Amino acid sequence: MQACNRAIIARMESPVPLIPQLGAHLVAAGGKRLRPLLTLASSRLCGYKSTPENQRHVGLAACVEFIHTATLLHDDVVDESNLRRGLASANAVFGNKASVLVGDFLFARSFQLMTADGSLKVMAILSDASATIAEGEVLQMVTQNDLSTPVDRYLEVIHGKTAALFAAACRVGAVVADRPEAEELALDRFGTNLGMAFQLVDDALDYAADQQILGKTVGDDMREGKITLPVLAAYEAGSAEDRAFWERVIEKGEQTEADLPHALALIEKTGAIATTIARAQAYAAEAVDALSIFPDSELRRLMTETVQYTVDRAR
Amino acid sequence: MQACNRAIIARMESPVPLIPQLGAHLVAAGGKRLRPLLTLASSRLCGYKSTPENQRHVGLAACVEFIHTATLLHDDVVDESNLRRGLASANAVFGNKASVLVGDFLFARSFQLMTADGSLKVMAILSDASATIAEGEVLQMVTQNDLSTPVDRYLEVIHGKTAALFAAACRVGAVVADRPEAEELALDRFGTNLGMAFQLVDDALDYAADQQILGKTVGDDMREGKITLPVLAAYEAGSAEDRAFWERVIEKGEQTEADLPHALALIEKTGAIATTIARAQAYAAEAVDALSIFPDSELRRLMTETVQYTVDRAR
Repeated sequence: MQACNRAIIARMESPVPLIPQLGAHLVAAGGKRLRPLLTLASSRLCGYKSTPENQRHVGLAACVEFIHTATLLHDDVVDESNLRRGLASANAVFGNKASVLVGDFLFARSFQLMTADGSLKVMAILSDASATIAEGEVLQMVTQNDLSTPVDRYLEVIHGKTAALFAAACRVGAVVADRPEAEELALDRFGTNLGMAFQLVDDALDYAADQQILGKTVGDDMREGKITLPVLAAYEAGSAEDRAFWERVIEKGEQTEADLPHALALIEKTGAIATTIARAQAYAAEAVDALSIFPDSELRRLMTETVQYTVDRAR
Repeated sequence: MQACNRAIIARMESPVPLIPQLGAHLVAAGGKRLRPLLTLASSRLCGYKSTPENQRHVGLAACVEFIHTATLLHDDVVDESNLRRGLASANAVFGNKASVLVGDFLFARSFQLMTADGSLKVMAILSDASATIAEGEVLQMVTQNDLSTPVDRYLEVIHGKTAALFAAACRVGAVVADRPEAEELALDRFGTNLGMAFQLVDDALDYAADQQILGKTVGDDMREGKITLPVLAAYEAGSAEDRAFWERVIEKGEQTEADLPHALALIEKTGAIATTIARAQAYAAEAVDALSIFPDSELRRLMTETVQYTVDRAR
């Protein structure tokens, strides 16, 4: 992981100083580096032998993080967010323009990293994932403020914006280790389901956690009129009066200070968090299941624990 | 070119309807399709044989246009432009968020097209160009409002934002035709110099043409405080009073309705357009020169005429 962090910093370099400056801000903001970790863990689970000459997994882990960081930069512009992982977001510090353009640079750099890796198979997996992410983001924008969004549509959104890159991050681990397709597909399934669970929990936390734990402002999703499962579940299970409340705050976007506590109370009353977490648990179980084709090992146990930890964040 | 247009429309498809909708808006807005034309012309100049099975040049021409379109979408967001090619820009019709996200989609799609092509060499050329474009855009943003920007820095900006993709568009034509490196480099040099000339003329037109010819609002660059050669030359050659005017308008961004005609008069008085066009002519001459390694042919003459036409737009 240290090698991966070094690769991230090294590949952020550019003759244009603002790029590494903004890059340093993002690196300092930290984050869990979950996606590159998945690439590293998956390659090891598949028996990839890391040697000083054989560092493809590190380059690809950095590549995955660059794709993720580029989408974060653009998300914050689109969502007009001022906080990211508890710190001022890049757009708040450097402006929207810098975030759009440096995001583009990171996207381009991720494709340079793929090209340097040289596997067409890896390139297909990661470029397909990039297109799917963008589609998911557009779909999320289209469903914004629309309480008639079916749950399936919401699941499609989070598959695109989150699960697709988790899946690709894991799958390329099997590819660099040159393993049979069954292992590729198992890791793809592991990543997809972990990603779905992860995003469901994230969406639950936006109506549940306090800001210190979450590293973002609670109620962001509500303020943006974002359609997530907690809202859909609370709306579905709510009284006529509850529904009128959600229609005003989410669909019309008319919000006052008192609305967030009331929203949290409605979410609590209707069991919407429990509904969301139950869905996350189901995906988590399938993620764990997907690993069953690999022999038992400490690493497999660690990956299983990661799945459980992802869901337990919500407790 | 019709095959390329068909490929562009086909590859704009997505299960998310807003993507082809915004795509249709961009296709309807037309544009010159100069960059994909360069790929097609370069491949033919290198003797690439187009057959029903051999359509790599078409896929790559579409890829080049996707990269270009993605950067246009993001540019318009960054510049807050409301007009593009004389029509309402995508961000004015669909909003900034849609433009950012659909731009990301088009970038990702361009990488899918490269991956489908399957040449690592092509991928390196186009992913390097994408990174250089983003660096040029960031550098342009950093120099905004800064009249102390050296001319060389300005040239670096237009190399990044324009000439790099022109060069890549031409160079991949030689690569698909499997020609020796000398021809690749000649086409790279042709594209680079044509791109430089093209952007210099574009920047001249922003202070010279009327809106019908240009398809964009005259004075856009001034309103944005963009540093271009016409401004640098007029500032350099201006009186103390002229300089105070430019400092107020470009550096402080304090502008009134009367400032644009006054700016045009100063640009005229100082011969700044002629200075800019002279530079463009020099690049154009080098572009024509770069083609000299290819035997004389109707196509080579057409490409030479394209260079001259690019510069003559400014008359």
